[in-house]
Amino acid sequence: MSEDALEEPDFETEPTLLKDSKVTIVGLGLMGGSLALALKKRQLCRLVCGVARRQATIEEALARSAIDVGTSSLQEGIAEADLVVLALPVRTIIEFLPQVGRLAKPGCLVMDVGSTKHLITQAMADLPKHIQVLGAHPMCGKETSGLAVAEATLYENAIFALTPLPRTKAHSLQIGQTLIRGIGATPLVLDPSAHDRLVAAISHLPYLLACSLVATAQEIAAEDPRVWDLAASGFRDTSRLAASHVGMMLDILMTNRQAVTEMIDLAKAQLTAFERWLETGDQDTLADQLAKLQQRRSKMFTGEEE
Amino acid sequence: MSEDALEEPDFETEPTLLKDSKVTIVGLGLMGGSLALALKKRQLCRLVCGVARRQATIEEALARSAIDVGTSSLQEGIAEADLVVLALPVRTIIEFLPQVGRLAKPGCLVMDVGSTKHLITQAMADLPKHIQVLGAHPMCGKETSGLAVAEATLYENAIFALTPLPRTKAHSLQIGQTLIRGIGATPLVLDPSAHDRLVAAISHLPYLLACSLVATAQEIAAEDPRVWDLAASGFRDTSRLAASHVGMMLDILMTNRQAVTEMIDLAKAQLTAFERWLETGDQDTLADQLAKLQQRRSKMFTGEEE
Repeated sequence: MSEDALEEPDFETEPTLLKDSKVTIVGLGLMGGSLALALKKRQLCRLVCGVARRQATIEEALARSAIDVGTSSLQEGIAEADLVVLALPVRTIIEFLPQVGRLAKPGCLVMDVGSTKHLITQAMADLPKHIQVLGAHPMCGKETSGLAVAEATLYENAIFALTPLPRTKAHSLQIGQTLIRGIGATPLVLDPSAHDRLVAAISHLPYLLACSLVATAQEIAAEDPRVWDLAASGFRDTSRLAASHVGMMLDILMTNRQAVTEMIDLAKAQLTAFERWLETGDQDTLADQLAKLQQRRSKMFTGEEE
Repeated sequence: MSEDALEEPDFETEPTLLKDSKVTIVGLGLMGGSLALALKKRQLCRLVCGVARRQATIEEALARSAIDVGTSSLQEGIAEADLVVLALPVRTIIEFLPQVGRLAKPGCLVMDVGSTKHLITQAMADLPKHIQVLGAHPMCGKETSGLAVAEATLYENAIFALTPLPRTKAHSLQIGQTLIRGIGATPLVLDPSAHDRLVAAISHLPYLLACSLVATAQEIAAEDPRVWDLAASGFRDTSRLAASHVGMMLDILMTNRQAVTEMIDLAKAQLTAFERWLETGDQDTLADQLAKLQQRRSKMFTGEEE
């Protein structure tokens, strides 16, 4: 076999279908563990291999039948994999990608489920050409993390963003879509930068607003701790995201700084407008704006238990 | 009977116990309706009378056994009442109080469940001396309103603030506490102004943060409506309060302007700090602050289903 053949294998004529694939999931936390559980439960592929640093995690995953085989060796896990899914914090994904590119067999599709996509797909662009690449990001999660809280149903009814690169082949996108539909989610194809800006508004800003709420309550609590006694379901829900895993959120914020600061600016401008209407007693304008927002929010999530 | 006797009846020696009282609830929405249901279910008083503008509401309340008798006449409802609870929007309470003071019998205790307390207790201070007054505010609710969503269990395990005035007599405070414990809530006695500042932080700020989030997403959606497709449980929870009843919230904000703008300022300062750390790449400080907030929030609401 010539080196050329290795570089450009003829996999387009014989792509491995998901059902015949060895799928290796690197990282068995909430996202990776739930993906493994869903793949196994729905019998979507030939073999699920889990890669985790700690032996205890591998044993837990085996005990829960989340994986068929497990290893703490990236090399061992990725060998012979048809599909590799990196379910790690964003900057760990970026750090691991070159190594994954060296270890993966020709024709292997490398995906990830990282929460920001611009820098990850940039790193994916540098992988050897005989590797297929596809960015992905499921719009679900919990504010708790780890395999212990993983569930096969996590992805059900979730939107699952796919961010193909210019080099991503059609059949790779198809495999991604088959995987997503297979676990009960809905694929949404987006450009990586567009994705990052949209999630800054709909996901990263809510996190920082929740944090700013807890920080403000904490300042007031320093004077009068009874503020915590008065916290009810409104505070509970609005602040919930502040309990998110800090390492994960730090990775997300640091790899999406421009879009996140843009959203903070927009939210601050809105808060300043509320302040101005309150200070000047411009009740009508305030009422108009609140009614518009009320209407918008009420239309969402209808039918879901809130 | 001399006028003096009317002005200062000797009710301290014979206070009407809650169980022997006619309780009149003015306003049969979520809060008033739920209070009526709880009083009836737990048989805490002699008679529950409901006052509502619309005949249909009275009929619904009678059909649900929330009240023993109902009327659309304030005069008729308040006559002979031992305890009157105003379950109306804040500014409606302030508007109704003088009339309630004229209609209530000597020794009657007038309470309210309005969400801000400074202006309400100020208006209560002006009532005739033969009327007893006590401000109150239960820390529970829903983002939907109306009798249809009222439930006898709404107040269970909630904190119920009581804001006595200097003129409030001890036995009136006791009746308030008996009522609150009777419906399964926990009383917390606060000064009206302290109450307003604390709820500005823990309740009104969350509402405005939720609104600023929906407003920001709406701005982004004007460019790319797919932002709504990406909204998941994090956005859902953080934005939930934006669906609150606008009339009610407007009343709350307009009667607590100073404390609310103070809290907006504190939240904006926190957001600005996040921005600065992101812009300068000061990851360590950002991580420290996020970890402190994560720790604080994780300690709260433990044991509750989230």
